[in-house]
Order: sequence, then C-alpha cells, then structure tokens
Amino acid sequence: MTTLAVDCMGGDHGPRVTLVACRRFLDTHPDAKLLLVGLPDALSSFSHPQAQVVAASDVVAMDDPIEVALRRKKDSSMRVAIEQVKSGAAQAVVSAGNTGALMAIARYVLKTIDGIDRPAIAGRMPDFKGGGTTMLDLGANVDCTPQHLLQFAVMGSALVSVLDNIESPTVGLLNIGEEDIKGNEVIKKTGELLRTAAKSGDLNFYGNVEGNDIYQGTVNLIVCDGFVGNVALKASEGLAHKISETLKNSFTRNILTKISAIFAYPVLSDFKDKVDHRRYNGAALLGLNGIVFKSHGSADDVAFGTALNRAYDAAHHNLLERVRSRIAHAAPLLALGQSDASA
Amino acid sequence: MTTLAVDCMGGDHGPRVTLVACRRFLDTHPDAKLLLVGLPDALSSFSHPQAQVVAASDVVAMDDPIEVALRRKKDSSMRVAIEQVKSGAAQAVVSAGNTGALMAIARYVLKTIDGIDRPAIAGRMPDFKGGGTTMLDLGANVDCTPQHLLQFAVMGSALVSVLDNIESPTVGLLNIGEEDIKGNEVIKKTGELLRTAAKSGDLNFYGNVEGNDIYQGTVNLIVCDGFVGNVALKASEGLAHKISETLKNSFTRNILTKISAIFAYPVLSDFKDKVDHRRYNGAALLGLNGIVFKSHGSADDVAFGTALNRAYDAAHHNLLERVRSRIAHAAPLLALGQSDASA
Repeated sequence: MTTLAVDCMGGDHGPRVTLVACRRFLDTHPDAKLLLVGLPDALSSFSHPQAQVVAASDVVAMDDPIEVALRRKKDSSMRVAIEQVKSGAAQAVVSAGNTGALMAIARYVLKTIDGIDRPAIAGRMPDFKGGGTTMLDLGANVDCTPQHLLQFAVMGSALVSVLDNIESPTVGLLNIGEEDIKGNEVIKKTGELLRTAAKSGDLNFYGNVEGNDIYQGTVNLIVCDGFVGNVALKASEGLAHKISETLKNSFTRNILTKISAIFAYPVLSDFKDKVDHRRYNGAALLGLNGIVFKSHGSADDVAFGTALNRAYDAAHHNLLERVRSRIAHAAPLLALGQSDASA
Repeated sequence: MTTLAVDCMGGDHGPRVTLVACRRFLDTHPDAKLLLVGLPDALSSFSHPQAQVVAASDVVAMDDPIEVALRRKKDSSMRVAIEQVKSGAAQAVVSAGNTGALMAIARYVLKTIDGIDRPAIAGRMPDFKGGGTTMLDLGANVDCTPQHLLQFAVMGSALVSVLDNIESPTVGLLNIGEEDIKGNEVIKKTGELLRTAAKSGDLNFYGNVEGNDIYQGTVNLIVCDGFVGNVALKASEGLAHKISETLKNSFTRNILTKISAIFAYPVLSDFKDKVDHRRYNGAALLGLNGIVFKSHGSADDVAFGTALNRAYDAAHHNLLERVRSRIAHAAPLLALGQSDASA
C-alpha cells in the first residue's frame, strides 16, 4: 500500500482542481491511499474508501513570503501534508502551492539527506516523442559550487532510474559549447568532477550539452544551477505559450480560417496532444528525507493528476532508498569534491 | 552613402546564400554600397554597379578554433571585411561565420570603446507581433560583474534607440523572480547599479524580468550574462524547432492529414510568417570601435538579408555615436560601478 499526502488547498485553483485529480487517481490506483490535507469545510464533499481527510486550519497563499509561510502558518495544509511524510503516515507529498514556501517548509520539517548540502528541484522537459529530459536545478539554488552540481547529478540519476526505468541514465552538463574548455570556472571544474564520477561508476557522464539539447533528448538528465535552469524553463514556457496562442489566433481570425480549422481539427488535436505540457507536470524536490513533488500552480486536474502519478511511482519504487544508496556510493567523491570546492 | 563590408564566405552556405541576399539588398537600397569580401573566384559571377569585390585569400571555417582564425588566417575574408571598417572604407561589417572567431578578430582589429571592458552580443527575440525584445549578452561573456552588466545595459539602450527608434527603451534585468531580493549576489548588486543609473538619467530601468518575459515584450531590452543568455537563446531555438517539426509531421503523416493541410494552408502560411525566425536574424557585437553584425551560420538568403538591413540601419543612424555618447553620459556611474565591483 502506497500512501500520498496531498495539499488540496495549494495552487491557483485549490480543491476545485486537486479533488477532481485525486478521485481519478484513486479510481486508477486501487492499491493507493490518499491523505487529503486542507480546511475540512473545503473537503467535506469528497468521499472515497481509499481517502481520508486530514484537517489543517490555514492555507499558504501563492504570494506569501517564505517567512510568513514558515513561521506564521504552522498549521497550513502544506505543512501538515509534509508532516504526514515526516511521521511516516505517507510516503510522499504533492503540493501545487508556492514553490519557495514548499521548499523552505519541506527542508525545515524533513531536513536534507546526509551528504547533501542543498535540495534541488528536478523537472521533466518534453522531447515531443512522449519521453523527456529531466533537468535540475530549476530554481532552488542561485549559486552553486561544482560539488553542489555533482550532488544534483547523483540525485537526478536516481530519480531518472526510478521514474523512467533507466538503470544508468546519461548525464549532460549544461554549458555554452560542447568542448571541455567552454564555460565559466564553476562549470569547467564541475566537468572535471563529473568525469571523475564517471570513472568511479557513480554516473554515466555524457559531457557538455547546450540549450537546444534540452528538447532533443540528447541525454536523460541535464544538470545546471538553479538560476540558469529557471531562466531556461520560464523562457521555454513563455515561448511555447506564445507559439500556441499565435497558432490559435491564426485559426480563429475569421470565418474562413475557422472553417479550415474544422478540416484541420484531427491534426491540430494530435499536435496539441504531442505538445501538451500537462503530461510533464510534477517536479521532484530532491535531497530531502522524504519524497516531495511540486505541481505547477496553474495546473488543471489532468496536470495535477500527472504530478500525483509521478509521486506515486517515486514512492512505489523507493526513490528515497535509490537516492540514499547512490549518495552513499559516491560518498568518497562527494567528500573529495567538498575539499576541492573550498580550496 | 552607407557602405557595408560583407564576409561573403562565412556561414554554412557561403556565397550561394550571401550573394543572393546582397543583390536583393542592393536593389532595395539605392543609396548603399557593398564591399564583397572573399575568394575572387567565388565572387567572380557577381556584378552590380553598387558593389565592389575585395579579395581575401583564406576562409575561417565554422569549426576553426579561435586561435587558428586569429593567428594563422590573417588574410581571411572575415578579417579583411572587419579591416574595411577599421580603415573607414565601410561603416559596418556583416558575417555569418564562426561567432567566437568573429568576436576575437573584431576585438583585436577594432578594439573596445573607451569605458567598455568587454564587448557583448545583442540579438532580437520575437514578440510574435512583428516587434521584438533585444537581449544581451548572448554568449560572449560567461562571467560578468555588475559593472559589465551596467555597460551592457547602456550599450543595449543605444542599439534599441537606433534600430527600433525608441528614445528611452525600457531595460529589464533577467532574474528568477520580480522582487529586488531575488537572484544571486551579482544580480542583486546589478539591480542596485541599474536603479542608480535610472536616477541619473542613463537608463530607463524597469526592474527584474523573468524568462517568460523575453517573448512577452514586457521590456525593450533584457540584460543578462552570456552564459544565461546563450542557454536561453539555444533552448528557445531548440524548442521552436521541435514544435514546428512536430506540427509539420502532424500535417504530413498520411493522405488525410495532407488534404487537411491544403485547407489549412493560408492559415499555416500566416502562422509560419509570424513565427519566422529569419526576420530576427542579425546580432550586434556591441562595445567595439566599429559596427559588427553577426548572422546565424545557418541563415538562408532571407535571413542574411535581415542581418544586412539591420547593419545598414545601425550604420545609417550612427549607432557608434549613440553608443559613445551614452557611455560618456554614464561615465561617472561606470567609474563608480568599477570601484564598487572591485570592492
């Protein structure tokens, strides 16, 4: 039996979206159980034999400063959901709430795994063939040392091996050229560390990759600092949104274009499925003593359902143990990295 | 009379593309003159009253190391074309060759403007309404101090005011959140410098922007370091390519989808025009004592023509004088930035 704790109040839409996704999830996962965390009034309409409501008296708003979420809302649905993982009542938690607050509370409640300095956010970018490239960090860490990036590579490899069932995922280091001499000092030093890690069997290091490799499926995992990762993620989201908006406007401009849209409908619908970002929702917060998944705040029920599925798969296949054992295997190198980084 | 020097040998296609674009450019610019630089044999078929061939005996290959391009190919078409600007024979140079080589040779031959430590690459990203957002640096500088970023902001403002005819362009600082407290130390310090520059009338600073703002036209100019800018640019190029490939495949999958493409043709063609990256080709190398434009290596004749037009507009409207006068106006602040940055 795998149990997930769900912060039902998080995201732009709250229970209106999360409960719909939870019901669909339960109907397709007879071996799963959900702890629905939120204001009892907001969840009272929901009833399912595999679900149980856990009351919280407060809600973290999407624009709450981290300080407020962490210090003043100690009985928020987000925090109570995370505490279900801490206590062992659930094996994973899913929230569509404020990312900064989720990371801060998860870190405070669960603490980081031994050997990991900083948790990171790992998301999946589409390759337009149904698969995808996992990328981290997507915004938790704005300044990273080579050792941090090595830790991300090791944790990310564990995530890909669990969720994509790839035993030895290929790892690329995001850079501005393929050659080893490219990039700034941190990136060059990271390249050296990752090559050493490949030799000791801790990683399957491919080498440097560039921005266009994200969507080409060149590697299974791309490692970068959270500043670069966040900019690349948001630039991509913004561009994809603009392109689909332009296509939609082109087809709805006048009566003639609307008629042509009817003829093109099956093709447009197939295209829409292929580029559907909702199938990629659900980022993992890695490096914590517990499995935490973050859904996009604007997720609809389909997208939130993807995040639930990913959290379930991660819990069901023991992500935490896989991360811990990979970290333990890489311990000598992580320690070496540490002394190098501070040198 | 505005004269451009064109490196006709550069890019993936060389004269086959550059000469077609040059002829169209000349036919639409009766007041312009072109110096066509390259191997005489490769250019012998071209004749036009406003064009003149300048011989070079060598060509920088797309994969030549910078060292080879700079030290061993002293009579390359790229270098001879840049020298036309140095000597005053041309007011601007355009090349589709190897970016690293172009920057290195241009810097060596032309030197940087007083007050500028490092040249930067400024490109235009589409806003899907026919306009665009100028962004720099796109890859010349992997490590930047706040002072470098201030220099980029000042130079970029001059470029936008010349090419987009906006007297006081809005400037955004690329970050991972809107609030002033977001980002790493370099970015926070840069935010302070840009706010000071806004007070002294050197800039029209909007504040922080995020990755998704690139395509929304939130500001006229976005400033970032070359590592982040290059990753954002290449990720966007890769994503746009994948989306258009997927759309094309959807419409050509079988006889039925091909028929629907016929009905949808006018709409798809309109869409293609709107997202046509060729209309955004031509990045400016800013901070040099001369106007240098870089075309994408894979540019076709339409795209190369855009780069020629942009270089012409920049030369015709005295970009260099605009950059110098803005740098002079900001001199006290640039000096202040310098001492702060080294503190």
